[in-house]
Amino acid sequence: MTIDREAPVGVFDSGIGGLTVAREIMRNLPSEKIVYFGDTARVPYGNKSQETVLRYSRQIIRFLREQNVKAIVVACNTASAFALDEVKDELDIPIIGVIEAGARVAAEMTRNKTVGVIGTEGTIGSGIHAAFLKKLDPSIRVIGKACPLFVSLAEEGWLHDPVTTEVTRRYLEPLKEQGIDTLILGCTHYPLLRSTIREVVGEDVCLVNPAYETALELRQLLADKEMASTGKGREEFPYRFFVSDLAEKFTVFANSILPYDVTMTKKIDIEKY
Amino acid sequence: MTIDREAPVGVFDSGIGGLTVAREIMRNLPSEKIVYFGDTARVPYGNKSQETVLRYSRQIIRFLREQNVKAIVVACNTASAFALDEVKDELDIPIIGVIEAGARVAAEMTRNKTVGVIGTEGTIGSGIHAAFLKKLDPSIRVIGKACPLFVSLAEEGWLHDPVTTEVTRRYLEPLKEQGIDTLILGCTHYPLLRSTIREVVGEDVCLVNPAYETALELRQLLADKEMASTGKGREEFPYRFFVSDLAEKFTVFANSILPYDVTMTKKIDIEKY
Repeated sequence: MTIDREAPVGVFDSGIGGLTVAREIMRNLPSEKIVYFGDTARVPYGNKSQETVLRYSRQIIRFLREQNVKAIVVACNTASAFALDEVKDELDIPIIGVIEAGARVAAEMTRNKTVGVIGTEGTIGSGIHAAFLKKLDPSIRVIGKACPLFVSLAEEGWLHDPVTTEVTRRYLEPLKEQGIDTLILGCTHYPLLRSTIREVVGEDVCLVNPAYETALELRQLLADKEMASTGKGREEFPYRFFVSDLAEKFTVFANSILPYDVTMTKKIDIEKY
Repeated sequence: MTIDREAPVGVFDSGIGGLTVAREIMRNLPSEKIVYFGDTARVPYGNKSQETVLRYSRQIIRFLREQNVKAIVVACNTASAFALDEVKDELDIPIIGVIEAGARVAAEMTRNKTVGVIGTEGTIGSGIHAAFLKKLDPSIRVIGKACPLFVSLAEEGWLHDPVTTEVTRRYLEPLKEQGIDTLILGCTHYPLLRSTIREVVGEDVCLVNPAYETALELRQLLADKEMASTGKGREEFPYRFFVSDLAEKFTVFANSILPYDVTMTKKIDIEKY
């Protein structure tokens, strides 16, 4: 199969959080076209089972294939944890998630071999970060903690708020007490709470944002496979956004975090895929 | 069409919250059989659009019809707000929601004609409580407030916690300042936070829990239509629970709030309906 190197990259998430990954791809791979899908009708994935998250991911991949994407980025930690391994074998185009890149950087960063990971119930319960980290370095100790309130706090917009500080302290102080020197922000919403997290864990803990690392991994992958776009047609192809619910609300959020105006968001019926 | 009065009542919710309504039906209508559906694969509904919530509700109603229910209780405030009016006209069996009964009691209770309503973004945005209350008494002033963090706090189990108290204060003090003497708990999760809500609003504000009122409305409706079960076959028909995801997790929660052991929870693929 010949892959059209000028074709877009598909990026998907359970909702809006994956836009933080799309943003890093836009910044670091400006020649690439992007088709983004946010599953806003079924968000969140973090408290759902592997079977359900896998079924949802397959539907989204079928939709993205119809958009003729050349590669797919699973910009959702829960879907990366629950679905990536399975769907990789079913696909004839490259697909990467957000977990491996974050784990690799954390393994390079940690000096005392004690790494914390925060994420949704599903991601933490899967133990997938620990599995990757231990493959890279069996001496690394991994301490996971599900932080289910973080997504609601971020979506409520309480980014700098005493309540958020107190919740963050409750979740993260046990990790600090166990001596972590590196913390993976294992959910795409969490970078929005970065300054409060920084305040609670202190300056000495290195915060790893997998969104940035994933963009670099994508660049490497496209280069290795000679699939990187030359930029041809990029100007004529505005970034495309699709959602399963509430296109307007999504557009408002997208405009608040992306460095340009989102003009085209389209709602589709994902259950048909 | 003749309705079999010994047929079960269908009850549905976006997830587990509606069990508080099922519990009141079990307590107050012990002769009735119940088929419960919780849409745990797509929960929550509170931040989704009317169009999506209506589509989900129609799928669930098709499923419940297959279970030969004689009547349906929409035990979810958001679905009651967004879907009840539309689906009522499409059905040949009675269907009731949780909003009307709560509004009726609040209208009876308020002395100073100032009623607060708390619920999800969708429910509060719909303005449906205000519409019902004003139909009952145009002089009633209604103050609505969406409390999106309450569901996460209840599901995190932080029912008696300084964080929950602070969040509750933040949400409810503006309502108190506006002089409400009655407060409708317009989301099925909120009764779980009742004691903290009571602490913040004080003893003088009457809290209305629509779950109880809805059970009474169902009893009246079945009596009026001569559809109340005689109790025949009830013993041989254990309450039936269906979910769209994670049957086990649901069973654990159900066992924590229902006064008997839930033994049968079955997972179904709701997208097929």
